[in-house]
Amino acid sequence: MNKQAIFHITDIPYTYAIDENTLAVRLKAAKGDLKNCDIYYKDRYDWVNPFNINSMDLKKSDSLFDYYETSLQIDENRYRYYFKLEDREGNICYYNERGLHEELIKPYEQNCFQFPYLNTADIHKVPAWAKEGIVYQIFPDRFCNGDKNNDPEGTLPWGEEVSTTTMFGGDLQGIIDKLDYLQELGINIAYLTPIFLSTTNHKYNTCDYYQVDPSFGDVKKAKELVEKCHAMGIRVIFDAVFNHSGSDFFAFKDVIENGEKSKYKDWFFIKSYPVDTEKINYITFSNNVDTMPKLNTHNPEVKEYLLKVAEYWIKEVGIDGWRLDVCDEVDHAFWREFRKVVKAANPEALIIGEIMHESTSWMRGDQMDGFMNYPLRELLLDFFARGRITGQKFQEELAYVSSLYTDEVNSCLFNLIGSHDTARFLTDSKEDINKLKLAAAFQYTYIGLPYIYYGDEIGMVGENDPFCRRCMIWDESKQNVELLSFFKKLNALRKTEKVLVYGDYKDLSSNKNMLIYKRTLGNEEILVILNNGSEFSELSLESTEGKYVDLLNDKEISISNTIKVNGNDMKILKKI
Amino acid sequence: MNKQAIFHITDIPYTYAIDENTLAVRLKAAKGDLKNCDIYYKDRYDWVNPFNINSMDLKKSDSLFDYYETSLQIDENRYRYYFKLEDREGNICYYNERGLHEELIKPYEQNCFQFPYLNTADIHKVPAWAKEGIVYQIFPDRFCNGDKNNDPEGTLPWGEEVSTTTMFGGDLQGIIDKLDYLQELGINIAYLTPIFLSTTNHKYNTCDYYQVDPSFGDVKKAKELVEKCHAMGIRVIFDAVFNHSGSDFFAFKDVIENGEKSKYKDWFFIKSYPVDTEKINYITFSNNVDTMPKLNTHNPEVKEYLLKVAEYWIKEVGIDGWRLDVCDEVDHAFWREFRKVVKAANPEALIIGEIMHESTSWMRGDQMDGFMNYPLRELLLDFFARGRITGQKFQEELAYVSSLYTDEVNSCLFNLIGSHDTARFLTDSKEDINKLKLAAAFQYTYIGLPYIYYGDEIGMVGENDPFCRRCMIWDESKQNVELLSFFKKLNALRKTEKVLVYGDYKDLSSNKNMLIYKRTLGNEEILVILNNGSEFSELSLESTEGKYVDLLNDKEISISNTIKVNGNDMKILKKI
Repeated sequence: MNKQAIFHITDIPYTYAIDENTLAVRLKAAKGDLKNCDIYYKDRYDWVNPFNINSMDLKKSDSLFDYYETSLQIDENRYRYYFKLEDREGNICYYNERGLHEELIKPYEQNCFQFPYLNTADIHKVPAWAKEGIVYQIFPDRFCNGDKNNDPEGTLPWGEEVSTTTMFGGDLQGIIDKLDYLQELGINIAYLTPIFLSTTNHKYNTCDYYQVDPSFGDVKKAKELVEKCHAMGIRVIFDAVFNHSGSDFFAFKDVIENGEKSKYKDWFFIKSYPVDTEKINYITFSNNVDTMPKLNTHNPEVKEYLLKVAEYWIKEVGIDGWRLDVCDEVDHAFWREFRKVVKAANPEALIIGEIMHESTSWMRGDQMDGFMNYPLRELLLDFFARGRITGQKFQEELAYVSSLYTDEVNSCLFNLIGSHDTARFLTDSKEDINKLKLAAAFQYTYIGLPYIYYGDEIGMVGENDPFCRRCMIWDESKQNVELLSFFKKLNALRKTEKVLVYGDYKDLSSNKNMLIYKRTLGNEEILVILNNGSEFSELSLESTEGKYVDLLNDKEISISNTIKVNGNDMKILKKI
Repeated sequence: MNKQAIFHITDIPYTYAIDENTLAVRLKAAKGDLKNCDIYYKDRYDWVNPFNINSMDLKKSDSLFDYYETSLQIDENRYRYYFKLEDREGNICYYNERGLHEELIKPYEQNCFQFPYLNTADIHKVPAWAKEGIVYQIFPDRFCNGDKNNDPEGTLPWGEEVSTTTMFGGDLQGIIDKLDYLQELGINIAYLTPIFLSTTNHKYNTCDYYQVDPSFGDVKKAKELVEKCHAMGIRVIFDAVFNHSGSDFFAFKDVIENGEKSKYKDWFFIKSYPVDTEKINYITFSNNVDTMPKLNTHNPEVKEYLLKVAEYWIKEVGIDGWRLDVCDEVDHAFWREFRKVVKAANPEALIIGEIMHESTSWMRGDQMDGFMNYPLRELLLDFFARGRITGQKFQEELAYVSSLYTDEVNSCLFNLIGSHDTARFLTDSKEDINKLKLAAAFQYTYIGLPYIYYGDEIGMVGENDPFCRRCMIWDESKQNVELLSFFKKLNALRKTEKVLVYGDYKDLSSNKNMLIYKRTLGNEEILVILNNGSEFSELSLESTEGKYVDLLNDKEISISNTIKVNGNDMKILKKI
């Protein structure tokens, strides 16, 4: 037994409450090392009755580890447990709070791992609606110009080439005008990048957190948008830029004007006075972005100010949640307060962090519900677009990434393949539409929320900022309508096939060019085969015999020994 | 390289802020596997400059792992890093967010681990005074009867044999009367088990959180105690029993009386009505302890009530902190609120959890400062009192336990060898005073707060409750005065030798019967040798040559090749 590979801790994500009466338990071991993994458990105050025993399930494997899981239920919700591990050579180890032992000291209750009490207050439940969500990200200046009267000075004709400073007049009325399009597409969450008063086209340098930028509309128009979305079953997420303000935010302007005498001087991190936006003698977002002074979210006044903003848009305008810009550079203490305020304003509000890296310290249920899953995006690019990794490696890395979070968090990740901060997928895939389709098929058949960056669904291309922010193409003759109808199909499937939302995910035998996996929920089963190679492939898969319906063309097929999949093609097969 | 043994995560305790400008980083690897462990780091937005490089230090080892540590400082406090590992055969591995690699893909910045921003709000600082603390635990009914007028009915003569229900009339005046004793002993933190109105001698079933039990005194007397302690440099910690109340707590009485109509019915977990203290149809502490109904700390009214209690005793009476009874069965959300209220009432207040097991989920800096270190107690018993483990195993298990927490938490643990909930150490050691001395010497020369359970210092014995709660022996002829003077000596050393408080701890070559370790702080160095065997031992230790003063007898000794230590004896040697 590789003893150094064995790991468990009585903390998230290795132990956590699933619901009021159920405790999830995980353990990892060296890949292929164990034959059996059992958990012995009972009430922490019970010194009399024998332990209950669960056999733990091998749920997934990465390149180094196997991950075992089970869930426990006992009457009093106070858990004491240890593990019995058996490797493939028959060696047995017991694992408790004091480590690995060939034999356990009696009484076995001693030195057990303990989950002292499952308190309902500590259960992380994401909003139920979010799990069934399909996200559509809108960059408002570039989506649709619905009101020519509010176009900012210098607005360019729709569709001209973009630069970092160009404005195109897209606005909230434009989004309202296109709600039929969104509904027909089949998404149910609209995430808008910032819409508050700001000098730039992206509006990540906020001037006024309470005002909609007049070139986009006003608060009334925002309400109208939200109401109309809700009437169509679409939820609306706004973008909270709380790491920094704009340099024309009233408080920063006051510091510029009044220097050390400003009562707002501790709202920012000023290095010296007078404040100078050319020398940039204050902390900013990223590398000295003078227009984005970092906010001191540790300052109670700043905290109060921003939390009121968070509450205002939920209560006043009815938005369904916040996406949190650069939230990993803001303190955890702030986000804990933020969660309380937001969930008090609307217990069903969703909180999604923009964190591009490992996110464990934000994902314990006390801060965000989920995050923008950039690690998955990297894998999708590496496998489908860049051809850098095999299908097997893809599954292994995916298993590792998901092993870092609870099932609840994993069910609530925004599984993007691109955003306003990245090149478009189709550009990374050298405009190979099939690769985009394969990646999208994965998004829609995996755990977490499928996510479309506006325009990807009609085949838009573009390198990173500014070219990934081109104007949405509304001229149908210039849209890839076959791709669009493929996305519509996927959206429809995601809605009708709950197994794609709630089912277990199991890699079957992904290989160099293929992802082969199964989603199961109760008796339902969907088998997915994504052939990323250019060659036709005939697969023989164990225990996949049976009748299926191909959900992409509604044809029935029967699998006896082998399944055939064309190069750069896919099967999404539902067992019947 | 044992790849499965390599572990790092960008979360506590593997990455955390030490202060406003310093990030601590840890990594574990298989014991003895690595020759070198380097960290490459720089600003997360810096794509231009080369990485800085730190060589990580091997800090400690348990039975399976080596633990490497370093601390990083960069200007902007936004960290990006990866590791370069070299094993003893010269194999090299790079370790970043996407795992272990034989070669890194360029640019190396890609896929780095990220600590996005070191925010001051997230730094866990325990009160500075606590680190230099020496705790004395008092069980008030059994410490000293200073006021005969408030003796409860049925008070027994001091020193008679105890039962679970006997009362002896100990009180706050008694503690005040013995402050000279405590000061002479040399402790500087008095921790009192509960003193609030309650029917039992232990008072863990609270009737009124605002009233001192009249058999102990009143609020005025509590204030007098705290003031007199403070005047003598002694801090006072009270016991917060917030997991459950007493069954005669006003709210529970109301539920008994008014059943489902009681406005306090959701303050508890009632299974059916009417509430019946014989059938016990409500959730209690432990196994159906009818007098201790569990409080619903998720209920905002309960939360508000208890948090006001927490604040009251700090603001009104001036206590210096709380020890939290059964805090591991109360929700994390409650303790986060509790921390805010307590630290707002007094930023220097100390919060110590009673958690007898792995405590990681409470020790992230958002809840408690430290905990009662029962895992260390088990090790001290197993090695010194029970002879169950070797010195080497002791060091390995100690290394494992301390690897679970940040240095800040480790510096703030209550390192007890006994309490009112355990047998006394001297009973477990079969009344071998030498074993108690050795264990105490370890407490005083290790990281964290030495802790005396009243009476241990004069040689009191007793099995678990009720016998560990016997009356304090004040008759000097019945005290072990030699032991008492040994404890006085240890207390004095802990105060004069800051290296014992703040120094690094390094196991040298502990073996079957011996603990041999070094504390170092700057140029200061203390070498400790605890011989748990019955035989005289002559040790040869590498690089310990030099002149020392034996701090236990102030004699100078010179070590050339070997050091001699008698059986069941010790050396605490300061390098001069």
